[in-house]
Amino acid sequence: MRIFTPGPTPLPENVKISQAREIIHHRTSEFSKVFAEVQDGLKYIFQSQNEVLILAASGTGAMEATVVNLLSPHDKVLVIEGGKFGERWTEINRTFGIEVVVLKVEWGKVARAEEIGDILKQNPEIKAVFAQLVETSTGVVYDIKSIAEVVKETSAVLIVDAISGLGAESLPQDQWAVDVVIGGSQKALMVPPGLAFVSLSEKARELMESSTLPCYYWDFKKAIKSLSTGQTPYTPAVSLICALKESLRIIREEGQEKIIRRHNLLAQATRAAANNLGLRVFGFPSSNVVTAMVIPEEIGANRLKKLMWEKYGVLTAGGQAHLSGKIIRIAHLGWMDNLDILGAISALEMSLGQLGYSVELGSGIKAAEEILSKE
Amino acid sequence: MRIFTPGPTPLPENVKISQAREIIHHRTSEFSKVFAEVQDGLKYIFQSQNEVLILAASGTGAMEATVVNLLSPHDKVLVIEGGKFGERWTEINRTFGIEVVVLKVEWGKVARAEEIGDILKQNPEIKAVFAQLVETSTGVVYDIKSIAEVVKETSAVLIVDAISGLGAESLPQDQWAVDVVIGGSQKALMVPPGLAFVSLSEKARELMESSTLPCYYWDFKKAIKSLSTGQTPYTPAVSLICALKESLRIIREEGQEKIIRRHNLLAQATRAAANNLGLRVFGFPSSNVVTAMVIPEEIGANRLKKLMWEKYGVLTAGGQAHLSGKIIRIAHLGWMDNLDILGAISALEMSLGQLGYSVELGSGIKAAEEILSKE
Repeated sequence: MRIFTPGPTPLPENVKISQAREIIHHRTSEFSKVFAEVQDGLKYIFQSQNEVLILAASGTGAMEATVVNLLSPHDKVLVIEGGKFGERWTEINRTFGIEVVVLKVEWGKVARAEEIGDILKQNPEIKAVFAQLVETSTGVVYDIKSIAEVVKETSAVLIVDAISGLGAESLPQDQWAVDVVIGGSQKALMVPPGLAFVSLSEKARELMESSTLPCYYWDFKKAIKSLSTGQTPYTPAVSLICALKESLRIIREEGQEKIIRRHNLLAQATRAAANNLGLRVFGFPSSNVVTAMVIPEEIGANRLKKLMWEKYGVLTAGGQAHLSGKIIRIAHLGWMDNLDILGAISALEMSLGQLGYSVELGSGIKAAEEILSKE
Repeated sequence: MRIFTPGPTPLPENVKISQAREIIHHRTSEFSKVFAEVQDGLKYIFQSQNEVLILAASGTGAMEATVVNLLSPHDKVLVIEGGKFGERWTEINRTFGIEVVVLKVEWGKVARAEEIGDILKQNPEIKAVFAQLVETSTGVVYDIKSIAEVVKETSAVLIVDAISGLGAESLPQDQWAVDVVIGGSQKALMVPPGLAFVSLSEKARELMESSTLPCYYWDFKKAIKSLSTGQTPYTPAVSLICALKESLRIIREEGQEKIIRRHNLLAQATRAAANNLGLRVFGFPSSNVVTAMVIPEEIGANRLKKLMWEKYGVLTAGGQAHLSGKIIRIAHLGWMDNLDILGAISALEMSLGQLGYSVELGSGIKAAEEILSKE
């Protein structure tokens, strides 16, 4: 079985092996040492001087935590909504009584920074702008750099769900002035799910001071205070943090730039294969994380996904909401190399052929190899 | 290094090894099969027909989740507060605008069911009673059976934080009519921290219908709905759930009654050792989970704890709040047998001797062996 889903992603051997070790206790110097190394590694990934909070939760928990720590009922915020995860920002905010201005973006497209600037000008009371780095449901990558340039000129903070993109796409938090970056363990960070990360700028911390929404488990102030002693306020997911230590070592050894370049090449190869197979790549600009491709109705995305899985052991993701049954998504995320993605492409073309799609076997691979062998 | 803390607890070999396997994806039939087996095992542990919700969070997250799913601002509740974890119930409730009637219990003692009955009679508007099964900070076990008998005659629900006690103490949820039972992975369930469990009675589900507190990540209704398809609403902590599958197999093989009896014997042996060493056991009635013992001031609990750790590799827990520096707590919880606890007792007596306490080496062990060899 091979996983080509946008999380969880395959685990490197050292990450897996680290999980088989005896548990350590979180109130020991041994754990504090691990925690300090992990902090260091996360700052490297976030490209930030901010401390990175580590929550025992999946990504959605960190999204909720950010809302309840920074905002207050009746605050007005802007959500860029171009897919399922944009919608999640709207849902969470509304759940907590926050007034949401929705910037609807057609699924597969991205928001332009100017539009956001215009909305902020017309609504100077907006306290926060919510976006994704990668909208995983459509495969596109947002231009966070340009969006941040616009937002930083206002009093609003920019909050980016980088759960699927962190580590696979460029997102230098401090340099771009992104106020809140949220990450998850089970994506490019190559750790099982169960950890989420939040990094806050000074501007975000100031907004936090005025928040009146109640929180306890999610309380960032308590988490920040605990960090100074190498701890978390409540029992952390110790084994996953130890796994993260291992994965961060692997990441630092390869180097962030090279990792992003590798993801980019795998993404290019996947898109080239899709094109050569006559499949339209859905969404633009495409991310380094996942490639969505439109499957002709007579073939059926779900049938294709099922065949790739059952016959070739290649697990892909289908479409969500109105894209269900229309696209498949192949992730090239995390612990993945050329041969992995070539394997997925082979499974794709063989399965297409078997389902009666007119395909020249090897033509997807040829296009991919042309990209991969150039490097 | 050997862990004698009330969580995390040592991991059985199969649990550890399961963590070293490749990750599986949570939207597959493979995962749903694991999830179904885990559901079954949890119902066995909870002794309940209720489905058990599995959260990617540590225990405190599940405590908060229970409050925000069941209650509404200005509701009145009763908290039995006999230690740090009782206080946590008060803090969480107050954070969310709930009016708390506190039944203060001297640390080391437990609440009597009659007192609770009286308070409920005087305050018929109380919607929920919050208790611990084991108050881990003092080592005592509450008489949940009697408390439940009183609460079930009223309109209030009984919510029990059984995080440290679940699996080590008897708590047949359905038979005793406990409305909400909360558990954690890193205690008698012998899994790394990062999972929490909540089981709700029909009465608790009815109260949930009237709750107006907002929740998203914690939303029990969504979780219950997902359960029917073998899923969770958001990405679950897959590797920990796979570990739980292994530990539940081990638990079912030994059998719950035998496990509780084993914990009880280890606890008896530890208390007998303390007594024979002239150390007063703190708190009554003592739990099967952890034994707190008062350390004479001239020895110093923190010095003792440090020596046991540094010289003998035995990790114990100290006291919390005003008990800090006054007690040490030795847990006999989870994957632990006679020789484990005898090792901890040996480390205790050798360390006491080295710190100048008048001790006959072997006398703690003798008392413990008398208990353990009787069985």
